[in-house]
Amino acid sequence: MKRIAVYPGTFDPVTNGHLDLTERASRHFDEVVMAVLLNENKQPTFSTEERVAFMRDAVKAWPNVRVDSFGGLLVDYARKIGASVIVRGIRAVSDFEYELQMAMMNRRLIEEIETVFMVPSESYSYLSSKLVREVARFGGNISGLVPDSVEQALLKRFRSS
Amino acid sequence: MKRIAVYPGTFDPVTNGHLDLTERASRHFDEVVMAVLLNENKQPTFSTEERVAFMRDAVKAWPNVRVDSFGGLLVDYARKIGASVIVRGIRAVSDFEYELQMAMMNRRLIEEIETVFMVPSESYSYLSSKLVREVARFGGNISGLVPDSVEQALLKRFRSS
Amino acid sequence: MKRIAVYPGTFDPVTNGHLDLTERASRHFDEVVMAVLLNENKQPTFSTEERVAFMRDAVKAWPNVRVDSFGGLLVDYARKIGASVIVRGIRAVSDFEYELQMAMMNRRLIEEIETVFMVPSESYSYLSSKLVREVARFGGNISGLVPDSVEQALLKRFRSS
Amino acid sequence: MKRIAVYPGTFDPVTNGHLDLTERASRHFDEVVMAVLLNENKQPTFSTEERVAFMRDAVKAWPNVRVDSFGGLLVDYARKIGASVIVRGIRAVSDFEYELQMAMMNRRLIEEIETVFMVPSESYSYLSSKLVREVARFGGNISGLVPDSVEQALLKRFRSS
Amino acid sequence: MKRIAVYPGTFDPVTNGHLDLTERASRHFDEVVMAVLLNENKQPTFSTEERVAFMRDAVKAWPNVRVDSFGGLLVDYARKIGASVIVRGIRAVSDFEYELQMAMMNRRLIEEIETVFMVPSESYSYLSSKLVREVARFGGNISGLVPDSVEQALLKRFRSS
Amino acid sequence: MKRIAVYPGTFDPVTNGHLDLTERASRHFDEVVMAVLLNENKQPTFSTEERVAFMRDAVKAWPNVRVDSFGGLLVDYARKIGASVIVRGIRAVSDFEYELQMAMMNRRLIEEIETVFMVPSESYSYLSSKLVREVARFGGNISGLVPDSVEQALLKRFRSS
Repeated sequence: MKRIAVYPGTFDPVTNGHLDLTERASRHFDEVVMAVLLNENKQPTFSTEERVAFMRDAVKAWPNVRVDSFGGLLVDYARKIGASVIVRGIRAVSDFEYELQMAMMNRRLIEEIETVFMVPSESYSYLSSKLVREVARFGGNISGLVPDSVEQALLKRFRSS
Repeated sequence: MKRIAVYPGTFDPVTNGHLDLTERASRHFDEVVMAVLLNENKQPTFSTEERVAFMRDAVKAWPNVRVDSFGGLLVDYARKIGASVIVRGIRAVSDFEYELQMAMMNRRLIEEIETVFMVPSESYSYLSSKLVREVARFGGNISGLVPDSVEQALLKRFRSS
Repeated sequence: MKRIAVYPGTFDPVTNGHLDLTERASRHFDEVVMAVLLNENKQPTFSTEERVAFMRDAVKAWPNVRVDSFGGLLVDYARKIGASVIVRGIRAVSDFEYELQMAMMNRRLIEEIETVFMVPSESYSYLSSKLVREVARFGGNISGLVPDSVEQALLKRFRSS
Repeated sequence: MKRIAVYPGTFDPVTNGHLDLTERASRHFDEVVMAVLLNENKQPTFSTEERVAFMRDAVKAWPNVRVDSFGGLLVDYARKIGASVIVRGIRAVSDFEYELQMAMMNRRLIEEIETVFMVPSESYSYLSSKLVREVARFGGNISGLVPDSVEQALLKRFRSS
Repeated sequence: MKRIAVYPGTFDPVTNGHLDLTERASRHFDEVVMAVLLNENKQPTFSTEERVAFMRDAVKAWPNVRVDSFGGLLVDYARKIGASVIVRGIRAVSDFEYELQMAMMNRRLIEEIETVFMVPSESYSYLSSKLVREVARFGGNISGLVPDSVEQALLKRFRSS
Repeated sequence: MKRIAVYPGTFDPVTNGHLDLTERASRHFDEVVMAVLLNENKQPTFSTEERVAFMRDAVKAWPNVRVDSFGGLLVDYARKIGASVIVRGIRAVSDFEYELQMAMMNRRLIEEIETVFMVPSESYSYLSSKLVREVARFGGNISGLVPDSVEQALLKRFRSS
């Protein structure tokens, strides 16, 4: 039986912390699907298409990782693509409590789909998409924190604003 | 002396976790007043009238529980209705810190009114109004998490949206 | 119906933080029983008799507070004395998690006995019996942190050691 | 490639929370090895042999779960048995921080072995081996919290003491 | 070498907790610069000019404290004014995690600038600008929580609204 | 006025995380005194003399850092050596709460001595003396986590045991 893990997120934009986690997950599951959440209400910095494109570019060297987007309930999406596991990164206590609540609710919705938590490298323990956007907006150096294509796009985005 | 406890909240909508806590509180105080906060700024999913109606329906079997709404400072409202205790549920560490801050500020405003914390059943440890709304919006099953009338109203609300 | 609350602890020794909580609880319940845990394994600084004596002295002005000691399961003791509520103080996140675990286990053992948490005055937020003992051992000033009789006893204890 | 997960612990004694987690893990990995830590310094309530026997009895219906014991470094043991994943349960914030620290140290020792965290059912969120032992010692009802064989053994152990 | 510490914040409005921390910092560094963040996106209750004026008035007795405002990255501002230290107050676990993340990112941006955390007096452990605004809006007593000029301004602001 | 900071600890043994923090502190204070706590009750792995010797060797390149040992209350020691600041590292939430409690008690004992918290490099966020000892005991590789002299001493200690 092929074991598929879905790694959901907003990824606005994808960071090297997300990629570190994806690479780790790809060693322990047969397939990892990075799934961009279509959140219609919020105004993302990058469009879903842009976010998916950055991620596809970043994971192209890993044969068992693919990138997709989804709307609606995560567990419905996971079942649709045949995933048995939801992967989430945890770094901090505040992450942990929200993630625990989500994991319990998702389990209640579909019992067979399990959430597993993994820890990104400590080099990325302070990293978040929001913080990267804020640093980039004010011209701070984000090299090494995001893939090159994301760095270029952020520079371009905030230079013109 | 009659001991009155006020259990304040937004209750948008009331969940079975809130009701579990109310029922527990009703055994230890002479009267429990569930008090819906009138927060004019935020846009609730249900109007104050709807929220109060759901709650009245849900607590009608408990003789010493009543439902009300209030604006302004909680401690002023508590004093007005003769309550000596504020009841709050705590499930998680992040709840706890905010609640502690509020309890200390409320004590400073009116020393005689005490905040007591109670723990809902572990069956509801992952439950919040926000999470219920999100699951309902995407058609997830919320039966068992909210009273029947709330479930019907959420289904109706999000079907038509 | 008389509402009795039990406030259990090791109280080795009782601090002004414990007494602050007791006084608050005494305003909201008909009777408060401070119950010293007989923990045979640990070596307390003061004997059960001494701990009970310090507490009796400290609460003598409050007519609805009494001091007792107990062994075995707390919920069995609570039921024996007719208490419907267990009172516990919480100051910090680490307190909170352990207390939550105990509250859930106690509820499972006897469903009718509820744990309620109260917050001591912020003046005592850093205070614990252990810290008081450590400061006293090295001659630090503990006046204002414990009742006078406890202060005298600690001074005597550590002077002679 | 067969994916083996090791689930290490003291298991003194195994609880239904441990078994809930094991059963979940067994659905997502090809083999799960419950590994009892030989901690020579501490005085366990049950011997390693007893602890292993309780666990073997409890997992006998699950074909891809086996029970073992180990000394020394966990990562050395994991490598020896060909495990690529360490499974740990997390319930609370205090668990989480220690577990995170261990996961990072273990990764530093052997990079290829990953720690994944899973969440036991909320029914067991308050459960720990230590709490079970304490309740059993004072004659509290532990049925439903541990396997029957463990319940019998605890009753016998503490009756005779 | 003169040691300059920058204490950044929104200070909307400054509270006695902020001032307690400033006074403490002023004893341990040669100069303390309270730096009001120009956050263009959010709608503050008081304008940058008002916030700076309140603070100047409040710190005028302390010779080595001055008030300024800044935009852009904090570390760029710190370097510009010759500060080697960023001072932040921490009261709660949720503060702590965000602050830790910021401290690590700031260190990555400019290695030589260090963040140090200090603890305000426990009398202010429940105090925040947001809570002060909420209490003031509903006519609660905020005397003792903010400087007199801020109290007057808040009363005036919310009376007229 | 010369600003002296004391960095107290058990340092059994000193790790590269402690040294990272010391080096950072040495840039922001005129003198840093690493002060080994003489805790007579506990049985350390290394004697006070050994611990001090490891530290002296490790800090010899930093002219404004010196190593000492102390018994009794930390604040009394700090006053005796003319220190106005206590430096402590914080990495995790559980550290934080205990440290906060100590900082408040120390401030109550001597108001003029302030505790400041600093964050070690994220490379050492998982590191503690206890974990280093445990890894070393079972022959795990601790190179890069402690100074060379400590590594040699740990290897020797646990080889012979």
